[in-house]
Amino acid sequence: MAKAPALKSKSGRAAFIPPRAAEAVRLAISSLLAIAVLAVALNAQAPAPAPAQPQAATAATAARLRGFLPAAAAQELNWERQMQALPQAASLRASLKRLTAQPHVAGTPYDRSDALYVAAVFRHAGLHTRIVRYSALLPYPAEVSIELVRPQSQPLANYEAPIPGDRFSAMKNAVIGFNAYSPSGDVTAPVVYANYGLENDYAELKRDGISIRGKIVLVRYGRSYRGIKSELAAAHGAAGCLIYSDPNDDGYHAGNAYPLGSYRPATGIQRGSILNNNYPGAPLKPGQAYPAGEAAAWKAALPTVPTAPLSYTAAEPILAALTGLPAPRSWQGGLPFTYHLGGNGRVQVHMRLRMDFRYRTIWDIIGRLDGHEPGEVLVGNHRDAWTFGAVDPNSGTMVLLELARALGRLHAAGWQPRRTIRLCSWDAEEFALIGSTDYAERHLANLRKQAAVYLNMDEGDFGPYFSPGAVPSLRRLIYAAARGVAAPPVTPTGSVIPPPGCTPRTVFDLWQCQRAAAAPAAGPPPAGPPPIGVIGGGSDFEPFLDYVGVATADISFAGPYGVYHSLYDDFHYFRTQEDPRFDYGVTCTRVMGVLTMRLADANLLPLNLNDYAGAISRYVAELQHKQATGPGAQLNWPRVETAALRLQSAARQFSVRARAALTGSAQHPRRLARFNAALAGFEQNLLLRRGLPGRPFYRNLIFAPEITRGYATARLPGVSQMLKEKNWLGASVQLRYLYEALQRATIRLQTVR
Amino acid sequence: MAKAPALKSKSGRAAFIPPRAAEAVRLAISSLLAIAVLAVALNAQAPAPAPAQPQAATAATAARLRGFLPAAAAQELNWERQMQALPQAASLRASLKRLTAQPHVAGTPYDRSDALYVAAVFRHAGLHTRIVRYSALLPYPAEVSIELVRPQSQPLANYEAPIPGDRFSAMKNAVIGFNAYSPSGDVTAPVVYANYGLENDYAELKRDGISIRGKIVLVRYGRSYRGIKSELAAAHGAAGCLIYSDPNDDGYHAGNAYPLGSYRPATGIQRGSILNNNYPGAPLKPGQAYPAGEAAAWKAALPTVPTAPLSYTAAEPILAALTGLPAPRSWQGGLPFTYHLGGNGRVQVHMRLRMDFRYRTIWDIIGRLDGHEPGEVLVGNHRDAWTFGAVDPNSGTMVLLELARALGRLHAAGWQPRRTIRLCSWDAEEFALIGSTDYAERHLANLRKQAAVYLNMDEGDFGPYFSPGAVPSLRRLIYAAARGVAAPPVTPTGSVIPPPGCTPRTVFDLWQCQRAAAAPAAGPPPAGPPPIGVIGGGSDFEPFLDYVGVATADISFAGPYGVYHSLYDDFHYFRTQEDPRFDYGVTCTRVMGVLTMRLADANLLPLNLNDYAGAISRYVAELQHKQATGPGAQLNWPRVETAALRLQSAARQFSVRARAALTGSAQHPRRLARFNAALAGFEQNLLLRRGLPGRPFYRNLIFAPEITRGYATARLPGVSQMLKEKNWLGASVQLRYLYEALQRATIRLQTVR
Repeated sequence: MAKAPALKSKSGRAAFIPPRAAEAVRLAISSLLAIAVLAVALNAQAPAPAPAQPQAATAATAARLRGFLPAAAAQELNWERQMQALPQAASLRASLKRLTAQPHVAGTPYDRSDALYVAAVFRHAGLHTRIVRYSALLPYPAEVSIELVRPQSQPLANYEAPIPGDRFSAMKNAVIGFNAYSPSGDVTAPVVYANYGLENDYAELKRDGISIRGKIVLVRYGRSYRGIKSELAAAHGAAGCLIYSDPNDDGYHAGNAYPLGSYRPATGIQRGSILNNNYPGAPLKPGQAYPAGEAAAWKAALPTVPTAPLSYTAAEPILAALTGLPAPRSWQGGLPFTYHLGGNGRVQVHMRLRMDFRYRTIWDIIGRLDGHEPGEVLVGNHRDAWTFGAVDPNSGTMVLLELARALGRLHAAGWQPRRTIRLCSWDAEEFALIGSTDYAERHLANLRKQAAVYLNMDEGDFGPYFSPGAVPSLRRLIYAAARGVAAPPVTPTGSVIPPPGCTPRTVFDLWQCQRAAAAPAAGPPPAGPPPIGVIGGGSDFEPFLDYVGVATADISFAGPYGVYHSLYDDFHYFRTQEDPRFDYGVTCTRVMGVLTMRLADANLLPLNLNDYAGAISRYVAELQHKQATGPGAQLNWPRVETAALRLQSAARQFSVRARAALTGSAQHPRRLARFNAALAGFEQNLLLRRGLPGRPFYRNLIFAPEITRGYATARLPGVSQMLKEKNWLGASVQLRYLYEALQRATIRLQTVR
Repeated sequence: MAKAPALKSKSGRAAFIPPRAAEAVRLAISSLLAIAVLAVALNAQAPAPAPAQPQAATAATAARLRGFLPAAAAQELNWERQMQALPQAASLRASLKRLTAQPHVAGTPYDRSDALYVAAVFRHAGLHTRIVRYSALLPYPAEVSIELVRPQSQPLANYEAPIPGDRFSAMKNAVIGFNAYSPSGDVTAPVVYANYGLENDYAELKRDGISIRGKIVLVRYGRSYRGIKSELAAAHGAAGCLIYSDPNDDGYHAGNAYPLGSYRPATGIQRGSILNNNYPGAPLKPGQAYPAGEAAAWKAALPTVPTAPLSYTAAEPILAALTGLPAPRSWQGGLPFTYHLGGNGRVQVHMRLRMDFRYRTIWDIIGRLDGHEPGEVLVGNHRDAWTFGAVDPNSGTMVLLELARALGRLHAAGWQPRRTIRLCSWDAEEFALIGSTDYAERHLANLRKQAAVYLNMDEGDFGPYFSPGAVPSLRRLIYAAARGVAAPPVTPTGSVIPPPGCTPRTVFDLWQCQRAAAAPAAGPPPAGPPPIGVIGGGSDFEPFLDYVGVATADISFAGPYGVYHSLYDDFHYFRTQEDPRFDYGVTCTRVMGVLTMRLADANLLPLNLNDYAGAISRYVAELQHKQATGPGAQLNWPRVETAALRLQSAARQFSVRARAALTGSAQHPRRLARFNAALAGFEQNLLLRRGLPGRPFYRNLIFAPEITRGYATARLPGVSQMLKEKNWLGASVQLRYLYEALQRATIRLQTVR
């Protein structure tokens, strides 16, 4: 499927990224261009900066390693230190260059070539590697032509201009701008400007007496998943939907445009799927034994209104020609004129879309390193891209490959993970999370039994801002990993400016500094560790978190990124704008390595259920707080509150017993295995088998994508959705489901001895 | 001196103006253009809409008229009804057309011609009329030439392009763009972009390592008085200062630009004075017996850095050429590229300014209608304009003249005001509030003895949003006047769209509707009457409120207004964009008439000291609240709080006794006169003879212009300024002054029997 523009971070998590910080570096780079290029070139060959040993492997440290017996802890730190020395900037660079040499939309020859390359790297690293083929309905565009008909006839180019110096952008073989799963169609109609195309925006148009029926709505990207934009346009009777990138959102008003900076240039087009995001997976798979109802739901999920993306260069003649009421102040974008609502027929546009819907072959690559105990740690990242995919997703793929190499080397040197590790290179994420969802559906029973944690990367490495998202039980492990990896060295060609007075030793320090620098100067300095956002949707973790029920984290180093899903997301962009020395690639590999190894090696899984239960209690309190009066206040909140408190108490006692099982005299492998099984299976207690209202795929009662936004995360999504809809009966039913889930989880924890 | 751009309303009061409302009408106008023009033409000749009688002059209503004996109340309402029938749209239109036929900067021949015209109208209306000449140092520009020197040589035009259909804008005799009191100078230097040129903006530049010293700073208009922008530029060592109008602030991103709408067109230049606004009045008057210290202060107040205004068309080549760090996101304006901070010498500008400083003659016109009791009601508005001044200030002048005609007619019909009314047409406000300040200084003793209230207009009538500002004692009278005047009829060519479900009968209804429509949809509907802002600075009320100590109100009907101080503030603009049928001109005249007559006629002045004392208590509490900890909390707040409470109690008892004096058996003219004298003189108790810290002219301890913003109003300015500067000793001294003033006022009220 798709991710939100990177500055807001994937899955809508608010990242505290001051875009100017990274811009400042880019500036330093460009003013020192000659030196920088040289430095990059040298550095790519040079050995990676010395691995960090910020936490010396003293006995004391080892003793504090959560979930490890003292001897195992010392060993673990030793192996991790070896692992941290392995990632190489040059190797990361070579991987990325290879992966992004050609555009590789899912199902195309270069996607297959990349798949075989990933498989070869996995195999060379010593992983048991499988190439898994699926067939999926992938639409490619045969024709996307948009033209202004009135006030003058003018074709609106579906064309992204080459950038001087960027040879990739001059290649002619990328797919043209289109929205996947848009129907074909031929529409000529008046245009209405509808801001971001949110429900509120349509309400405003209605107040202004402007009807959408039979019109083409022109909306801008941002604030919601593009599939929801198309769906709402359809719901309001539109005949067509154009989605453009406004320069105020990720173009010149956000910062310098590429090639000067990392924001969207004038002709940059954001491609992307518009499939209803409540139904991930491969639509209408041939021979797939869907229940009849689900296949029908799938058909219903296909968009009904012809929809296409535009650059702002293409949208400008439409917007400039619109008349009628001036747009509200907050609807005004960054083009140099007053925006108007239109709708009066003075501006007409002709859209002609021909889509080539076909079943095409896609390739997931799964590499396995076997452990000797039950439980699996999965690490996944998609490989397919709308164009070259240098940031999205192959910055993650290069890290995945480097991780495979490092783990393979350790394994060859004698390291044996306690649990099986699977590295997964997913295909067709951009269309509908297809590769990962198909995998999860086919291996559902095994995943339920075995999967302990799923670690995801997407736009894995494109800047200095460590931006993890995770379920609450994984937070402490992420802090520990961030404390255990060195911050990249600060150099004028690096991608980081430490805030004044801050010399970060570790990723954790860097993260804290950046957070302090981003905090409002007036308020008190932020207290505690940096918050880790929750995740619900927007990448391949969805099937694992929302459908199977696995503890999940999504890891990235973020930065300013305005060329999302455009031609310009290429290797030249990456090495001039994002991570020139691959410092963050090395750092990200180390963080992923620490997380993976610690999860795979721990005697007792380092998942903190106290944190999870505490978070659930807070979510309940927050939701109830919003229902101070009215029917929402009458719901049986006390029962759920009590259940959440009971879960907290059960989790506390569980962790005491688990620690005793680990370290006490009653130590016994089978006893420990019972605790590990309960930890690994914890999320599954929180699933609702029938799924959330109206979206059977989403079964997690604690986290899901926001139903009307797509990228944001809803907490307690069943209850909160019903409350939003003022469906009090539905809310009471969902509250009961939640209560039952908390009871289930409590009893499950209580029974482990 | 000068006023803030109209959308923020004069003197920085927040007006709840949804610009699109008026835009929507403009749209209706433009789409019905032929009809509209006809309608306007007809309407200008047609009789004004029937005057409102929303409050029938029943005995009950009359009995409720504050400050009037029953018989006097009935008479008053009768006279007011007659007055309300007199204002004529055609007459207002003719006045405005006459006043704005030529540009009339203070001291020019057409300024004199307008002065004589105003005097003739006053005389014809039967007012005792004086033409008062002053001599004042008024700089005119001999040359203002700005050119880009690097990266290319390019003159930046000081030129405002004619608008098709607007013959005024094609006239060549307006003064070129300049900032009055800028020194002459010839500077070539690198340019730094400094956002709005506020203290915070310079702090940000410092953090970014960019020095201003010896540079030309380019700042945008808005958020502060332009004189403060120039002064801060000087304080940071700049060699020159350019102030431009960004399209994001009052141009195409605020709404349609003139002639399509009311916002600033591409070449519109905001002229204006940059004299230090702590020293209003005529600088360095010849022969004026200033204390030596003050003359020196005057000299010190003259700006030191060559400063000039630019249109955004002229500023664009500079901004587009700037390189260096990208500007922070909030510094980004509406031009279609990324703004940069510059400062690196790649962009150089050459400013050559030659200013013709001369003593020139200006003319105040004072028309008097004698009353038979002590006390005076003054109504003032300036007449001089930077160009044609159709909105600023002659929309107010046309109302002043119409008021003169109406009061003259009543007087001829037998109406005798109880108190003397003075109508004042001030000159040279735009330079430094010179006409009004000189008047106040020369008549200080008499004003102290006689002046009861000063009513100001500036941009009096340019839209449907009633936007009064006043000292707290005048609020109830303003509500009463708004309830007593009909809302203009709603027509497609009028300037008002009533919010849905709202059919305003009176100005008060209209005001409430607009407020409800502007309130956030989510929150509760606003309760109580619409708030009336406080005033501190920005127009001719300053000498009366801040220096003499007179209860003051500033009255206007506001609307979107983006051509402030540009060539385009002309008659054609006014009648196409602002008040096409002069409906609001008629309405504004009626409101001013009701206020003036009721103040002049009441047996007991309708000033509510309870409201004033209550407001002071609130201001003290608010200020103290911000000093929760630290040295600010240690100040003697309880003493001042107690004093404010005592004043409240004294005001309450005073009003009981005053009502008894008015209506009771102890009625006696000399007793009533004592109460009236105490009401009229109330503000004088609240003055500090030595003036506020660093600005001796500002003596009012309750209200003053914000020292670092210029247009905004500071409450308890002495104390709050010292607290802001963390000058705890100073704060304690100011708090004592405030305490003493409150004591003084309390004793004064207590002694009136």
